[in-house]
Amino acid sequence: MTQVAPGGTIGILGGGQLGRMLAAAAHRLGLKVHIYCQDADEPALDVTPHRTLAAWDDEAALLAFANAVDVVTFEFENVPVATVEFLEKHRPVRPGSKALGVAQDRIKEKWLARDLKAMTANFAGVGSLEELLARIDQMGLPAILKTNRFGYDGKGQAKILERSDAEAAWAAMQNQPSILEGFVPFRSEVSVVAARGGDGAFVPFAVTENVHRNHILHTATAPARLSGDVAAEAADITRRIAEALDYVGVLAVEFFVLAFDGEDVLYVNEIAPRVHNSGHWTQDGAVTSQFEQHIRAVASWPLGSAAMTAPKAVMTNLIGDDVAAWASLAAEPGAHVHLYGKREARPGRKMGHVNRIG
Amino acid sequence: MTQVAPGGTIGILGGGQLGRMLAAAAHRLGLKVHIYCQDADEPALDVTPHRTLAAWDDEAALLAFANAVDVVTFEFENVPVATVEFLEKHRPVRPGSKALGVAQDRIKEKWLARDLKAMTANFAGVGSLEELLARIDQMGLPAILKTNRFGYDGKGQAKILERSDAEAAWAAMQNQPSILEGFVPFRSEVSVVAARGGDGAFVPFAVTENVHRNHILHTATAPARLSGDVAAEAADITRRIAEALDYVGVLAVEFFVLAFDGEDVLYVNEIAPRVHNSGHWTQDGAVTSQFEQHIRAVASWPLGSAAMTAPKAVMTNLIGDDVAAWASLAAEPGAHVHLYGKREARPGRKMGHVNRIG
Repeated sequence: MTQVAPGGTIGILGGGQLGRMLAAAAHRLGLKVHIYCQDADEPALDVTPHRTLAAWDDEAALLAFANAVDVVTFEFENVPVATVEFLEKHRPVRPGSKALGVAQDRIKEKWLARDLKAMTANFAGVGSLEELLARIDQMGLPAILKTNRFGYDGKGQAKILERSDAEAAWAAMQNQPSILEGFVPFRSEVSVVAARGGDGAFVPFAVTENVHRNHILHTATAPARLSGDVAAEAADITRRIAEALDYVGVLAVEFFVLAFDGEDVLYVNEIAPRVHNSGHWTQDGAVTSQFEQHIRAVASWPLGSAAMTAPKAVMTNLIGDDVAAWASLAAEPGAHVHLYGKREARPGRKMGHVNRIG
Repeated sequence: MTQVAPGGTIGILGGGQLGRMLAAAAHRLGLKVHIYCQDADEPALDVTPHRTLAAWDDEAALLAFANAVDVVTFEFENVPVATVEFLEKHRPVRPGSKALGVAQDRIKEKWLARDLKAMTANFAGVGSLEELLARIDQMGLPAILKTNRFGYDGKGQAKILERSDAEAAWAAMQNQPSILEGFVPFRSEVSVVAARGGDGAFVPFAVTENVHRNHILHTATAPARLSGDVAAEAADITRRIAEALDYVGVLAVEFFVLAFDGEDVLYVNEIAPRVHNSGHWTQDGAVTSQFEQHIRAVASWPLGSAAMTAPKAVMTNLIGDDVAAWASLAAEPGAHVHLYGKREARPGRKMGHVNRIG
């Protein structure tokens, strides 16, 4: 695989905080970063002079971007697959369009997991209210209806507790192809953030236990509390998914943990084809951060050690007005404050995070 | 003191690797960075879109820079004092012109140390060959002749082992005001990198033991091997220097360590009014890096913890062609590779460093 030597340029599709933190990691390795995004106000644009502001379908801009960089990656899984396919004709894109296409489609994601002998919630595609009602009758309730594509942080989701909720739930999908998922009575949610290198090396970080509030990640704690060999099983499922997708880079697999007869059982929930919020603790609690690890993978450098540097790491997101506490957080001994430089603290917006290690 | 909130801008005079690493630390705290330097090829310019390329005496450019930032600092101690004095009329500059003026002048530096009851080498100002010969006769040999100002990494220095070396040594100074320093038979060199906050808080990192090759720092190891309370004494001398200079930010004080009757004795060698190469280990081996600590100080944030995260940290510089080994260093488990993105690996040029922790 093409290796990007120091002095080379990583092209990143998307200008959010993940792009900003990827850029910082690339800079540390002597690499340049070129951000491709739409909005001049994106946080990653404050950390590099190299940028393209253009639409995802602007082929002239995409071609110039490809020519300005050595390798392309993305920090945002809603980049159109067609954009990545266009770029792949000109430069390596890591991970590639195959992984992106699967991760954008909840139904494909679940079929992949099942093909790999991993469990998922019950699910069924839904294209109309009539179909939704029929699926509810087959699957039972409670269940959750989600748009099949382009959802994040609980957007495009509706709970269905009773059959009479179906009409409002379907209306909320705005006629988009959707997926009905059977309710999973999980005791916890965990994720594996891991890297796969250009040479096929697979290096997982410690499994992280995630707590959500209002459908947004609130805290991520490593290592997760899991019985027996379940952490190793989570890492192994993640490896199988990465291999099936010919993946190069960092990915995250989110799992539900169910307590079954005193044993923990894993259900694959979602695959994120990028660095992930539940891996932010690695910035201060692992030998190599997920951001550096992703850059190493996409630049075809050897992967770094994913070992924890302390027995425990806790990441807490700063959502909306939480960031107003920055001064007291900065005064807390040992708290590592990370802020994204976003101008406006809107409700539900990720403004930063704090890592507490040890 | 004016506090710079997230979203604010730190102005940095100088565009070298120290500015690049300061920028990364500021970005992590949600701050923007504006670099003021002369050369479009400087490594810090690859990590921010905000820049001014202008001479140190370009008052229009300096004024526009001051108006674009909330606070000014420098990464390079050879910025003219007049530049800083001009900027101080418009924005806080931390540390200020007083500290800069002392640190640019070896004779003032040594008098400051002596005023604060710290020891230094014998020294005398020298303005001519005749004066040099007279001083040699008073002080004895061996000795070192240095330009009083603008030396670094051994530049502008000449050893005098015999009286007959004096003429060549004086010629090497090119008629600049110089300082003759008595030879110090040191057993080791150590430095204290420390921060002083806007509120007067003083937080030193562990004392670092430094090994030079060809007058350029080769390795820095923390903690330094020192007898008894000598580490605490080094930190205390550094505190007294910082207080005498009304210092705000990170500074480094370099010491010679002499073995005297079985006890370690400290001589102040140099004061650097900035983050320092011997503090680079803090990026991976301390709770807060020297770069974040400096940004916290100049932005009037509370200082972070300077505690080590492991019992030992070793930083090795990559000088000139050393950087060609980047791929094998990247493959070394647990080695933290930092590269500066400089295009050309000239002999003696600092290209990067590696931190090995634990």
